Amino acid sequence: EVVPTCERYAVRRLPFSRLADGDVAFFERLMPGRVITGQEEVKPFNVDWLKSVRGCSQLVLKPQTTAEVSQVLRYCHERNLAVNPQGGNTGLVGGSVPVFDEIILSTALMNQIISFDKVSGILVCQAGCVLERLNEYLEEQGFIMPLDLGAKGSCHIGGNVATNAGGLRLLRYGSLRGTVLGLEMVLADGSALDCLTSLRKDNTGYDLKQLFIGSEGTLGVITAVSILCPQKPKAVNVAFLGCQSFAKVLETFTTCRAMLGEILSAYEFMDEKCMELVERHLKLSSPVTDSPFYVLIETSGSNSTHDEEKLNNFLERAMASGLVTDGTVATDYKKIKASHLRERITEALTHEGYVYKYDISLPVGKLYDLVTDMRARLGHSAKNVVGYGHLGDGNLHLNITAESYSHSLLDAIEPFVYEWTARCSGSISAEHGLGFKKKQFIQYSKPHEAVVLMQRFKAMLDPKGILNPYKTLPSAH
Amino acid sequence: EVVPTCERYAVRRLPFSRLADGDVAFFERLMPGRVITGQEEVKPFNVDWLKSVRGCSQLVLKPQTTAEVSQVLRYCHERNLAVNPQGGNTGLVGGSVPVFDEIILSTALMNQIISFDKVSGILVCQAGCVLERLNEYLEEQGFIMPLDLGAKGSCHIGGNVATNAGGLRLLRYGSLRGTVLGLEMVLADGSALDCLTSLRKDNTGYDLKQLFIGSEGTLGVITAVSILCPQKPKAVNVAFLGCQSFAKVLETFTTCRAMLGEILSAYEFMDEKCMELVERHLKLSSPVTDSPFYVLIETSGSNSTHDEEKLNNFLERAMASGLVTDGTVATDYKKIKASHLRERITEALTHEGYVYKYDISLPVGKLYDLVTDMRARLGHSAKNVVGYGHLGDGNLHLNITAESYSHSLLDAIEPFVYEWTARCSGSISAEHGLGFKKKQFIQYSKPHEAVVLMQRFKAMLDPKGILNPYKTLPSAH
Repeated sequence: EVVPTCERYAVRRLPFSRLADGDVAFFERLMPGRVITGQEEVKPFNVDWLKSVRGCSQLVLKPQTTAEVSQVLRYCHERNLAVNPQGGNTGLVGGSVPVFDEIILSTALMNQIISFDKVSGILVCQAGCVLERLNEYLEEQGFIMPLDLGAKGSCHIGGNVATNAGGLRLLRYGSLRGTVLGLEMVLADGSALDCLTSLRKDNTGYDLKQLFIGSEGTLGVITAVSILCPQKPKAVNVAFLGCQSFAKVLETFTTCRAMLGEILSAYEFMDEKCMELVERHLKLSSPVTDSPFYVLIETSGSNSTHDEEKLNNFLERAMASGLVTDGTVATDYKKIKASHLRERITEALTHEGYVYKYDISLPVGKLYDLVTDMRARLGHSAKNVVGYGHLGDGNLHLNITAESYSHSLLDAIEPFVYEWTARCSGSISAEHGLGFKKKQFIQYSKPHEAVVLMQRFKAMLDPKGILNPYKTLPSAH
Repeated sequence: EVVPTCERYAVRRLPFSRLADGDVAFFERLMPGRVITGQEEVKPFNVDWLKSVRGCSQLVLKPQTTAEVSQVLRYCHERNLAVNPQGGNTGLVGGSVPVFDEIILSTALMNQIISFDKVSGILVCQAGCVLERLNEYLEEQGFIMPLDLGAKGSCHIGGNVATNAGGLRLLRYGSLRGTVLGLEMVLADGSALDCLTSLRKDNTGYDLKQLFIGSEGTLGVITAVSILCPQKPKAVNVAFLGCQSFAKVLETFTTCRAMLGEILSAYEFMDEKCMELVERHLKLSSPVTDSPFYVLIETSGSNSTHDEEKLNNFLERAMASGLVTDGTVATDYKKIKASHLRERITEALTHEGYVYKYDISLPVGKLYDLVTDMRARLGHSAKNVVGYGHLGDGNLHLNITAESYSHSLLDAIEPFVYEWTARCSGSISAEHGLGFKKKQFIQYSKPHEAVVLMQRFKAMLDPKGILNPYKTLPSAH
């Protein structure tokens, strides 16, 4: 049983109203059959995927339309009831579940595709569409989603946008800030904001939607998304390589970027500890063994002959110069086990017990030093200290496992990990966001003036603070 | 002589303070030798590049550092003096020059490169660096700027970011919203905001810099930029083609996108009228003739053999199927005259007299209908009605020329052009911004609620309204 967040972290409830019978009756009239109240039924919405935080909400609402989201928020705003917007509940920083009794506003039933234009590649859909479903839909028409992540089977596109998700394809297709063309949002007072344009370029006034991308549901609820989708590559190749040192992982990256150029679509690395855990807990076996570091390279292009030639030239060079000691290549992403190995590290880690997760941006040269330093610092007090991530984007996933949660281990990790990151001008959250668990550490990556300005935006857009309270920003005092 | 903007458009001056001798003395102490006051010396800063608008400022300031920009704005804010931030003054919507007597804050001397990291490709520089100088600097190190536009020889990177410039490479490298990684800004009250991170990914709090990208100097002055630069392509090829109809231009685009895939870096079109004007006014001659439409295709890749093979396969197909009737290919961008033809259309148009410029986003299929409809509507009252633009981005540049400015011709064009665009859910400004000339038309592309929210952001960040007044947003009543 997960310890309630308010107990573990000793948080104080803010003076929102408490849910009354009349409130539930109102919502049942508004959306009959789509109001969940039983304790057991609400439970899965109260606990995060990692089973690390738990709220005690008594109510889940499942609107189907933007108008319903508007009505819910207008009512909650009026009544001063706090609201926790929730997509696929796959977040890793405790942002997607309530801290106390916030009403859970789930986008699960907002799962309609509104339009797709094959000439421009622009998809418009409701916020609750599951990423993998969208990708399948697009593949049938010769396109793909510009993002891909391990949680694709359950995460919602609205949640992806609200958290500015990164993932495996960022290296090639760029961040959501470039590919999201339009959003429809509902603000805290229930007013809808329609910025759902389907244009590649639009410079008429301030780009309001950008403030909502990555705001983790604290400024508004995203109800629909317009997104630019790339053509499905005709050829996808995957190489899985073993390197004898992190220095060689870096040099391999430089070589591969120069030789693969525009077809390089992912450059991921993992250390041998990660591999060990994936093999032990998920019974997967690696095609390459006995290396302290592993690299997964993906290419995506329009001409398989050209792509294979580029990849082979690169591999020959990498092997001949000793950058890589062992490797395997496959011409179909789905056929290579190695890509599953990489995608399932997060899952394997949860089998270890409690996981302390850190998602750090650093200059690539220093990326692995943090893992080495942390391992030395914690010694036997941690079960495992592992590092993996999106090397091409300078993004390290540092994970520390233990049998169960302990305050003293947390104190040994934090603020050490944040101070280390700040010394290198890194980011303490590259892609996971701040949510509940990291919000008090924002000052390690943002100057005071910036945090104050964020708080002013929050106060302007949500004066009562009902939207996803206790998240993203430190409280303003 | 250009008619002063306030006379031509009958604008009312807002109640800002008027410049006093004490003010000039203060600035001369702050930045000796970098304060320009003589009427003749100030004149070029008062008139835009198109010679279409003219302010009557009496003072130009040329700070060198962010601290100086801070001191200037703190003083102006205190004294209620209006300020017009100015980069290379190459804007096309009257956003870069004063409307009345605003103090001109020029970034011309803020032209230092702060750092460039060859591993990550991240450039950090002051706002006044000229785009072409930056590109030359990067090329020496094997990289390029992610944007390119006709005004590159004089535009400043700070101005590019403040206007969210698009240009020729957007199709390949995406918008500045994805490539700008960090900004340093000074707000209206003189406080500096340092969000100048050099990280590819950072999800700690709201992305404040996005609000300043494309805000045209109305929310703050951008003083430094951190930007992700792509590797210099090893091979660049250009094809210049003639098509017998706009339908064939579109079909050629679909074919070329499928066959060139990841190496396609520009797809530009122009009509025969554009070609005529470039030939007549600039004495350039086209390598391809006798076509109602011309297409410029650029490829950029890492392997010249592969790229040429892809381009030749595409051309063979396009010729064989009659999509293209004539064409020429060059393997060096600088050697092909055709690319200059495209880049110099704007310049050729200025030789015609007065130019009414429209920069429209539309669904690609309807892109040229607007030109045809406008030509039919205006008949002989216009000298020329021409269309060209970034077809790959759905961006049309519609230009109407006349011997001189006339109210009646303007009335025949507007609001017709905006209503036409709104009916197709297009944008009335794809990349030029709203500046002074288009601000009152924002409602054709943005809903009322969005404009009201923009005005609230403006009021919050610049409560006295001193930053680039009379621009971007309609006044709030």
